[in-house]
Amino acid sequence: MPIDEATKLGRGVWLPQPELVNIYGAIIGDETRIGAFVEIQRGARIGALCKIQSHTFIPEGVIIEDEVFIGHNVTFINDIWPVATNEQGILLGAHDWELRETRVKRKASIGSGATILPVTIGQGALVGAGSVVTRDVADYAIVAGNPARFISDIRERRIAAATTRET
Amino acid sequence: MPIDEATKLGRGVWLPQPELVNIYGAIIGDETRIGAFVEIQRGARIGALCKIQSHTFIPEGVIIEDEVFIGHNVTFINDIWPVATNEQGILLGAHDWELRETRVKRKASIGSGATILPVTIGQGALVGAGSVVTRDVADYAIVAGNPARFISDIRERRIAAATTRET
Amino acid sequence: MPIDEATKLGRGVWLPQPELVNIYGAIIGDETRIGAFVEIQRGARIGALCKIQSHTFIPEGVIIEDEVFIGHNVTFINDIWPVATNEQGILLGAHDWELRETRVKRKASIGSGATILPVTIGQGALVGAGSVVTRDVADYAIVAGNPARFISDIRERRIAAATTRET
Repeated sequence: MPIDEATKLGRGVWLPQPELVNIYGAIIGDETRIGAFVEIQRGARIGALCKIQSHTFIPEGVIIEDEVFIGHNVTFINDIWPVATNEQGILLGAHDWELRETRVKRKASIGSGATILPVTIGQGALVGAGSVVTRDVADYAIVAGNPARFISDIRERRIAAATTRET
Repeated sequence: MPIDEATKLGRGVWLPQPELVNIYGAIIGDETRIGAFVEIQRGARIGALCKIQSHTFIPEGVIIEDEVFIGHNVTFINDIWPVATNEQGILLGAHDWELRETRVKRKASIGSGATILPVTIGQGALVGAGSVVTRDVADYAIVAGNPARFISDIRERRIAAATTRET
Repeated sequence: MPIDEATKLGRGVWLPQPELVNIYGAIIGDETRIGAFVEIQRGARIGALCKIQSHTFIPEGVIIEDEVFIGHNVTFINDIWPVATNEQGILLGAHDWELRETRVKRKASIGSGATILPVTIGQGALVGAGSVVTRDVADYAIVAGNPARFISDIRERRIAAATTRET
């Protein structure tokens, strides 16, 4: 079943294509919207009023706070030394590796096509589309590139945009 | 339903896995092929004789002309300042943001894994696999990288390849 | 049907979401695990004891040896000059282009979000998340970036990690 019974869906969660997602053991906050072809794993926690767009993958160890925008085709990482088997050639089980956590703080936005290593992404920050984020992102920072680097502060951009409109 | 009634499918459109796509309100031209795990949104327009490969996302505001190749896992962007909620903490609706358009001209090819910001991609151009395209691409240009930069003119490459074969 | 009859599944292959994959004409080795939203094409060969994570695309011409880890949202390329139609404007068929092969050797790991051009990836090598691999990767090499470049030898990292733990 694409959404298992262990998943806790908040009030008013909206999934336009519930047959085309794979969500198991996750916690999803109120009024969050989740697109098609999304996988959210056991132990992932998504806040309220988030948008999780199509094709995105959110594994165990990822905590997304309220009012966060996660674009299309965003991939989170929770294992920085992934292997299929151990030195004896035995397939690794669910607990045979070290979980690394990621937190995306309130009102942050992650652009489509981004890859997010285990980091903290600050409140109101913006990760540019197609970026690979390898280090923590400060509150309100705009970052972009591979690896993602600081571009500017989003609060300055908004002031500049408002000023331009007025003149 | 994975393909809604508002979608206009041209003659001879081929979808090998119609149960595994999410297409709504889009216009698809004659004889175009569309792979699995593809999402095409309301207002997107795809020309005739295109190949849209698996895992690709095409939102509103994207116009793809005839005979275009879109690789696997290509992500188009139509919102360069994405947010989940407004300043009052209310989830944004369908019209609370600025749509930015993308046009992919005739016979262009976009490599798999590319991310395309709102730009124009010229006729016969080639976007390398895994690129992040942040600026317009000239007709017949080959671009690659993050951000994508001009590599060469595809017409010169074809002449070089033909010459090599003859000698 | 998401897994066609021409596919040869080894003993103990595990697909937690068989309704949400698209696998046709492929060969899958014993005890390999395959996630949701994965497409594996005719002619692709996957070894035993591999992990193929969600959203990954494996086309014809890709050979994956035993005990390989393929992360989420990994895209392999088998056509470096993709086009939709020929010069006469006719849609290309299955054999109208040059297949380029990729081999991923035993115990290699490919990070999530990576794009792999037609290359050989060496035994025990590690491709960093979000990388675009354009050249062969040596045995036990760690590579990362777009284009991916050599970072270090994974055997040295493991010795360093072991030493740190002991002191």
